[in-house]
Amino acid sequence: MTEEPIKPIFRDAEGAVLMLDQTRLPQEETYQRYSTAEGVATGIRDMIIRGAPAIGVAAAMGLALGARAVHAEEPFAPALERLCELMATTRPTAVNLFWAIDRMRAVAAAFDADGDRSVMLDAFDAEADRIRSDDIATNRAIGANGEPLIPQGATVLTHCNTGSLATAGYGTALGVIRSAHRAGKGIRVVADETRPYLQGSRLTAWECLKEGIDVRIIADSAAGHLISRGRIDCAIVGADRIVANGDTANKIGTYQVAVLCHRHGIPFYVAAPMTTVDLSLSDGAAIPIEERSPEEVRGVFGHPVAPAGVAVANPAFDVTPAELIAGIITEVGVARHPYTESLATMMRDDRSSA
Amino acid sequence: MTEEPIKPIFRDAEGAVLMLDQTRLPQEETYQRYSTAEGVATGIRDMIIRGAPAIGVAAAMGLALGARAVHAEEPFAPALERLCELMATTRPTAVNLFWAIDRMRAVAAAFDADGDRSVMLDAFDAEADRIRSDDIATNRAIGANGEPLIPQGATVLTHCNTGSLATAGYGTALGVIRSAHRAGKGIRVVADETRPYLQGSRLTAWECLKEGIDVRIIADSAAGHLISRGRIDCAIVGADRIVANGDTANKIGTYQVAVLCHRHGIPFYVAAPMTTVDLSLSDGAAIPIEERSPEEVRGVFGHPVAPAGVAVANPAFDVTPAELIAGIITEVGVARHPYTESLATMMRDDRSSA
Repeated sequence: MTEEPIKPIFRDAEGAVLMLDQTRLPQEETYQRYSTAEGVATGIRDMIIRGAPAIGVAAAMGLALGARAVHAEEPFAPALERLCELMATTRPTAVNLFWAIDRMRAVAAAFDADGDRSVMLDAFDAEADRIRSDDIATNRAIGANGEPLIPQGATVLTHCNTGSLATAGYGTALGVIRSAHRAGKGIRVVADETRPYLQGSRLTAWECLKEGIDVRIIADSAAGHLISRGRIDCAIVGADRIVANGDTANKIGTYQVAVLCHRHGIPFYVAAPMTTVDLSLSDGAAIPIEERSPEEVRGVFGHPVAPAGVAVANPAFDVTPAELIAGIITEVGVARHPYTESLATMMRDDRSSA
Repeated sequence: MTEEPIKPIFRDAEGAVLMLDQTRLPQEETYQRYSTAEGVATGIRDMIIRGAPAIGVAAAMGLALGARAVHAEEPFAPALERLCELMATTRPTAVNLFWAIDRMRAVAAAFDADGDRSVMLDAFDAEADRIRSDDIATNRAIGANGEPLIPQGATVLTHCNTGSLATAGYGTALGVIRSAHRAGKGIRVVADETRPYLQGSRLTAWECLKEGIDVRIIADSAAGHLISRGRIDCAIVGADRIVANGDTANKIGTYQVAVLCHRHGIPFYVAAPMTTVDLSLSDGAAIPIEERSPEEVRGVFGHPVAPAGVAVANPAFDVTPAELIAGIITEVGVARHPYTESLATMMRDDRSSA
C-alpha cells in the first residue's frame, strides 16, 4: 500500500510513538516522540493528536509501549487492565478508542498467561501497526464509497478536521472530499474554522492546501449565511460515535450545520469507519459528551480573549439526530434511512466478512 | 438623567471625541481621543467603537468636529457633503449611521448659508450631544418594554455585544437583559463568543460582570447543543437594520441562532431603536452585507490560526427572516407579526410624537 504524504502517527524502529503535533500546525510541522504509555495518554488528552480514528491508533500504540514496560515478574493481565484504563479515560466520547483497546485485549487473551511474553509483546506491536494500516485502507474505501455523492464542481461545507490528521491517513469526511478532488471533480471546500480548537482553519485548510484543493475558511457563525444564499451544495462531516438509530456525536457545532442544511434542503452526510458505530446505544441521548477546559474558550492558544475567570460552557461534541442525516458513508457502503435497519445490516455484513 | 457607569463615547471640553477602545477590552480600559473627522472615521472603520447605535453617535460627533475644521472662506455645504460621504463609507450595513448623518444635515439646512457660522457650529455640537443622550434614553425605554418578555430565572442567550458599548450607553438587547436583572428576575446570560471579533466573550462578558449579571461564554457552535438540551429559555439580539417586513440584519451568526430557536420552540427577540428600522427596503435580500478583512478569520488579534494567505469568506452580518422573530422590541413598544403592519404603524406614531 502506498503511504499518504501526511503521516500523523507512526512507530519508529524502537517502538516509540511519533505524533505530528497538531497543536502547532499550521505554523510548525514538528513531531512529538513518546516512549511510554503515560506519554501517549498525555498526548491524546492534550490533543497533540485528535480525531476519533487517530485516537484509536494512538491508544493501541500506547498499549504496545506500556505492555513492554510491565516487569517480567509482574502478572500481566492486571497490568494490562491498568493500561487500558489509562487509555480509556483520555477522551470519553470517541468510541474508536474503546474498540482499539478491545482489539489489543483480544491479542492478550489469545496468549497463555504462562507463555512466552516476548512473543505476545511482538504480537502487540504488530496489532498496533495493523490497526494503523487497516485505518488507512478503511478511509480509502470510505472515500471511494462517498465520492459519487459529491456533484461535479460542488462547493462542499465541512466542519472540524476529518482528514489525514484525524486518522492514520487519508481521512474520513475529508477523505471523501480528497477522493472527489482526485477524481477531477473540480470541487471547492468551505471549512468552518471550528472554535474553540480551530481544527478547520488550522488543520483542514492546511491539508486542503497540501492536496491542492480550493479551500476557503469561515467563522463557524457564517455557515448559515452562506447556506441561505445558495453558496453551499452539500455538507460532509465525520463522527465520534454513531449509535443504532443513526444519531451521531461529532465535534461541537455539527448539529447546527445539520439543522441549517435541513432547513435549506442541502444534503448533509456523515463519513466514518464502521468502528465508529456503537449499536449498544439505541439513541444519541446516552452518548457521553466531554466537557473540556474553560481556557479553550477564554483564550486562543494562550492569547486571552475574555475576562479572566469568566464562566464557560465548553462541550466538545454535540449529537445530530438521524433525521437530519442524508447518508452515513462507511467502508462497507452508504447507510440510508431507516438507519436502525441499514446500520445493523452493515454491521452484520462487516463482521461476517472480517 | 443619571449617567450609566460605562461611557463608550463622549466629547471632552475641547470637542474632541473620546472612544473607549473596544479592541483592547477586556484586558485594558483605555480611551482613544480623536480631534478630527478623519480620526473618528478611522476609529469607526477599525472598530475602536462598534454597534449600530454607537456608530451613529460617533458619526454625528465626527461631523461636528469636521464642520469646525472647514475654513471660514470655504463654502460650507459642499464641505459638509464631503464629510458626510466620509462617514457614510465607514460601515455600510448599520442604518443608524445614515440616520445620524441626516440629522446633522438637517441642522445645517436650518441655517442661512450667509449667516453666522459659529452659531451653526454650536448647533452641530449640541445636536451630536443630543443624539448621544437621546440614545441612552431610547435604550432605557427599550429595556422597560422588553423586560416583561424575560421570564423570572430565565437563561437568556445573546449574540455579539448590544450593551453600553454598542450604544451611547445602557444597550439594546443587553439593555433588556440589564432591565430584567435590575428588576430582580435572577436571570442568567449565555453569551456567544461571536467570532471573528469576539464581541461576546470580550465585551458582553465584561459588561455582564460589571453589572453583576451571571454570565457564561460559549463558542458560537455550542449554542445549538445547549438549546437542544433545554438549557436556554429565550434568545435576544440587537439589529443593524430592520426592513419593512421585519427581516433583520445583525452580526454574522444571528441567523443560525434564530433557526435553532425556531426548531426548538424558543422565543427569539430582536431589540433595537426605531432608528434601526428602514422602511425603504421591503425585505432583507436588499440589505448590503459588509465583507470584512480576511485577517480577522486568519488570526485572532494578531495571533495566526490558519495557513498564511488562505482564502476566507468573512461576511460581517447576516439576515434573519421575519418569520423566525417572535417580537421586535423598540422604545415605542414591541412589534409583532405581521411586521409590515406593526412596524409601519409604530414608525408613524414615532414620527408624529417626535
